[in-house]
Amino acid sequence: MKKSTATLRAENYPHDNGEWFCEFNYRNVKGLGKEEGVVRRDPSAVILVDGLYYVWYTKSEGDFNSKSENIYDKQFPWDYADIWYATSKDGYDWEEQGVAIGRGGQGSYDERTVCTPEILAHDGKFYLVYQCMDKDGKYRGTYETVALAAAEHVCGPWTKSKEPILTRREDGHWLDDYETYNDQVFEGTVHDPTLFFYNDKFYLYYKCALQKDKQNKPDFAGTNTRWGAAIADKVEGPYIPSEYNPITNSGHEVIMWQYKDGMAALLNREGPERDTIQYAKDGINFEIMSRISHSPGAAGLFRNPEADKAPLEGLRWGLWHPPYEEREGRWDYIRRFDIRPKYLQN
Amino acid sequence: MKKSTATLRAENYPHDNGEWFCEFNYRNVKGLGKEEGVVRRDPSAVILVDGLYYVWYTKSEGDFNSKSENIYDKQFPWDYADIWYATSKDGYDWEEQGVAIGRGGQGSYDERTVCTPEILAHDGKFYLVYQCMDKDGKYRGTYETVALAAAEHVCGPWTKSKEPILTRREDGHWLDDYETYNDQVFEGTVHDPTLFFYNDKFYLYYKCALQKDKQNKPDFAGTNTRWGAAIADKVEGPYIPSEYNPITNSGHEVIMWQYKDGMAALLNREGPERDTIQYAKDGINFEIMSRISHSPGAAGLFRNPEADKAPLEGLRWGLWHPPYEEREGRWDYIRRFDIRPKYLQN
Repeated sequence: MKKSTATLRAENYPHDNGEWFCEFNYRNVKGLGKEEGVVRRDPSAVILVDGLYYVWYTKSEGDFNSKSENIYDKQFPWDYADIWYATSKDGYDWEEQGVAIGRGGQGSYDERTVCTPEILAHDGKFYLVYQCMDKDGKYRGTYETVALAAAEHVCGPWTKSKEPILTRREDGHWLDDYETYNDQVFEGTVHDPTLFFYNDKFYLYYKCALQKDKQNKPDFAGTNTRWGAAIADKVEGPYIPSEYNPITNSGHEVIMWQYKDGMAALLNREGPERDTIQYAKDGINFEIMSRISHSPGAAGLFRNPEADKAPLEGLRWGLWHPPYEEREGRWDYIRRFDIRPKYLQN
Repeated sequence: MKKSTATLRAENYPHDNGEWFCEFNYRNVKGLGKEEGVVRRDPSAVILVDGLYYVWYTKSEGDFNSKSENIYDKQFPWDYADIWYATSKDGYDWEEQGVAIGRGGQGSYDERTVCTPEILAHDGKFYLVYQCMDKDGKYRGTYETVALAAAEHVCGPWTKSKEPILTRREDGHWLDDYETYNDQVFEGTVHDPTLFFYNDKFYLYYKCALQKDKQNKPDFAGTNTRWGAAIADKVEGPYIPSEYNPITNSGHEVIMWQYKDGMAALLNREGPERDTIQYAKDGINFEIMSRISHSPGAAGLFRNPEADKAPLEGLRWGLWHPPYEEREGRWDYIRRFDIRPKYLQN
């Protein structure tokens, strides 16, 4: 018998005891599902407060056209959006409660849109981080910023930061030695913020995208998003981008959870390490723990109080929205995912 | 600036000029879509004959229950199935034509089911390869075989091989040095046959699965399917399994096309190299050409007469069925996929 090149490769792959591997089930939820003319997408983490589940998400109404000649027309589902929230007793049947964060007034940094929220419950308070655009944001090429809002109570009222806590960097960098991306601007945009209290500091993770793709097509690595981290001593900042950025070479929406002393991440959609689960003991230097498939896009994870009991407890279930190539119809909607029970360790 | 471990890894990934990378669009088709109580799945390749597109597929009716105590009850969607075919003028609007291959009579090797067909047009004739089960096949643990049927005309009549052309091997092997799979039986089942005329021989590729998983859960590599090849001088066989089997370390349903002097393959769903496109100049020893995502499951590819013009022309479009975790409702149905136009080289 002879060995094929595939067999020879397989002999060099790392093994794992299966604690980091899983598959997912998907199902619809009530209250946040399909609705003609209404966009609901990018759910935050789900948190449990006094026996009730809470989630925040992007909501917009009306049609959009990314090819419109009028730069002030709604261009994307998350353009001219607000952040709404919903509650549920069981995680399946959701009741929409209303606006949590509305767009700002004329001339404000968040006049045009607020979207893609993430929640952090910390020390008895609640913090939302989210993307913003001022009136001309789209015109300048998805010139988006990240803002923070704080509340004493989970239902608000929310106090917005006076200025964004993170902006794109004109002087950013990309992977200088990675030929395809040479000379590109890393952190040319900052999206999908996710905030953790970690190692006595606040870690803000986010997706970075190139302003444009030099070759206007992806290379082997897929397309052009990676993640960055910015760290602050206080929740309000200042957030200082890590010297190690980018901290991933793959991944689209930021999907992360805390596990013991480190950070776990699910990378999907883009890059050579798409569809992997990774772990960084220092929150920065990630190693591949498993390769998965059919992972949920834009997932907001249930912040499981028992997350330290097994690697994937923090990924146990959550909400997500199907990407446009999988969704049915024109209007984004939110679904639920669950790790299949046979993979649960706890 | 410092480099994260992810950046250091990325510097070692191979580059590609993008010719092997793509993303997919999905859409429903008419005539083979959702139908209550009817299963249509596992479409063959699509071939163009005299201006009309032809496809073959598994069709069964009625409910199934894999936990039934009666071993002769229908256990899976492809149990008690026949092979039907349909035609289309444009590849979107399909017209079901009727049965191509029906189950055999009492005591025959294909008494219980015929399913998962693949078509080869060669030298003016047509060949279908497909899975079969005799009456007790399910009882003995998916003891399935592969048979061949030949026809002078694309619409039949089809002449079945007197015996299966491929059976499971009691003396098979798995990856002996790959600890998790030690002592397992490779080719314990043979599924998803695909036939090519290649290098003046007939190459039969197929999916192999373990009879059972020793640990009853997947390791790092995912679950337990890989592909094998068996080669014959004549279309009717005998088909001799390659000494190099398994020829992949990943992949579920066999999805392959010919490109220039070699064979190209899309591996999905399972294993450490899931969601890769690979190429083997000799049809046996495959190398990874790109990493993709959201690939179509159980795809039947349009056998593009211009497949040699660019690496992915043979993957340009086809039919597939969503896996059970993605499909809507209980009944399998067939959809279409297309490589997004921006990735097409031709």
